[in-house]
Amino acid sequence: MSDKAWAYQDGAFLPANEARVAAGDTGLLRGNGLFETFRARQGRVYLLDRHVARLRAGADELAIAVPAEVERLPKIVSELAERCGLSDARVRLTLTAGPEDGQPVLLLQAWPATDYPPEMYTHGVTAVIASVRRNETSPLTRIKSLSNLDNLLAKREALQAGADEALLLNTKGSLAEASIANLFIVLDGHIRTPPIADGVLPGVTRNAVLELAEAAEIAAREATLTVDDLRRADEAFLTNAIAGVLPLVAVDGRNVGSGEPGELTGRLRALYEAAAAAA
Amino acid sequence: MSDKAWAYQDGAFLPANEARVAAGDTGLLRGNGLFETFRARQGRVYLLDRHVARLRAGADELAIAVPAEVERLPKIVSELAERCGLSDARVRLTLTAGPEDGQPVLLLQAWPATDYPPEMYTHGVTAVIASVRRNETSPLTRIKSLSNLDNLLAKREALQAGADEALLLNTKGSLAEASIANLFIVLDGHIRTPPIADGVLPGVTRNAVLELAEAAEIAAREATLTVDDLRRADEAFLTNAIAGVLPLVAVDGRNVGSGEPGELTGRLRALYEAAAAAA
Repeated sequence: MSDKAWAYQDGAFLPANEARVAAGDTGLLRGNGLFETFRARQGRVYLLDRHVARLRAGADELAIAVPAEVERLPKIVSELAERCGLSDARVRLTLTAGPEDGQPVLLLQAWPATDYPPEMYTHGVTAVIASVRRNETSPLTRIKSLSNLDNLLAKREALQAGADEALLLNTKGSLAEASIANLFIVLDGHIRTPPIADGVLPGVTRNAVLELAEAAEIAAREATLTVDDLRRADEAFLTNAIAGVLPLVAVDGRNVGSGEPGELTGRLRALYEAAAAAA
Repeated sequence: MSDKAWAYQDGAFLPANEARVAAGDTGLLRGNGLFETFRARQGRVYLLDRHVARLRAGADELAIAVPAEVERLPKIVSELAERCGLSDARVRLTLTAGPEDGQPVLLLQAWPATDYPPEMYTHGVTAVIASVRRNETSPLTRIKSLSNLDNLLAKREALQAGADEALLLNTKGSLAEASIANLFIVLDGHIRTPPIADGVLPGVTRNAVLELAEAAEIAAREATLTVDDLRRADEAFLTNAIAGVLPLVAVDGRNVGSGEPGELTGRLRALYEAAAAAA
């Protein structure tokens, strides 16, 4: 990290390389904690309240007390991005459960939001279907927990296969999501995304895209999806809070539709970017 | 922790409450790392070489370089227990993957080995079948990773139901293991434990018990087990490196066999304790 790298931890800003967590924290020892990732443009985060709502839902599930300072998150994020000199930042919020007899730790880190270069939008990205599956029987699929290694391994499997992303099936063989994004397909002119019950993280951007589609009278809804649906799809795209709407043009070496970013994908991306810019 | 609590981190002993891990460590951020838990009696660990072998296998899976100091683990554990004043210690080894551009972190912590009071052996323990299932499609079921929250939630579910432990089924509905132990049953005079492929962590104590049974000419082997098998079982027991062999006498409020610790369970416990004491 540059010498401009700062972090925020438990009420104070500090150089990023000085941020430390106690070795007794069960966030470290057993993956007992939560995270959120979002993008701060000019210090502002689109739909930050929804990231906070998901954080609170996860904290309820894990019985972690959310620190009061979360109320001041807009100001904290803005100051963090400014200290780091980042006009466009990828921000990671981590909330650990703390040591067994201790307090949760709230931590924020920021990096330049350079994960998705422009050609990923103009040419689209590729994916493979990962060997590891989403365990939809676990409440962890519905919260963004620190026990995130399955998704990390899936992503690694994709990169080793020369693809950009990994798609995960659930234990029944239905499509669930990508390793760090939600999945949408366009089939017979309709936009579809797997329901939460299929082992899907309720993505903030996923939900925003469903709402933006509805407002624009574009047919979009949740539906259990098979690999065969994906093979028949005209378009596909991935969503997360850093990338926004990202065209998915090939899976396991086979084109999705024409193999080019699709028209509906482009419309939704434009709607999303306009909404994010206006926020 | 007492003022006698020490930890070992990256080559040095330090007071336990001073042990810290960098906030950028992917062990914290994504549960990317491994752990081992074992018992040091008079500073000595039974089957430590097997814990190290499992650690190395997990590190291969996650592409983590195992620090050379692992070779000196017997001496490190012995000194750690002595500094803590513990003649009978529960020791936790943690190996994180480190920050994305950094080095893995090796950490050891020690606590008194008081997890299993004598009455748990004389009366046995109880379990419930957890709602969360083991995802046998994931390589993570075969390694002891820091993404351990599913097992922690299962254990919490058990404690809330007034039981001591949780049994986890796999996604096919077969029995896999307990939240922090392996499962054995005695059915028609034969000892059975689920195979690794059913979503089972290859427990060091599990394997030792299979070998001790074989040496004593007690029929014991791996077999896929159903909940119905458990209901028909004459005995059941749990194994891990802290508890050794622990009788399981009731599941979901129904007695296993007579509801008392079984005879074969007692024989295997005696064999295990004798082997551990002689090590």
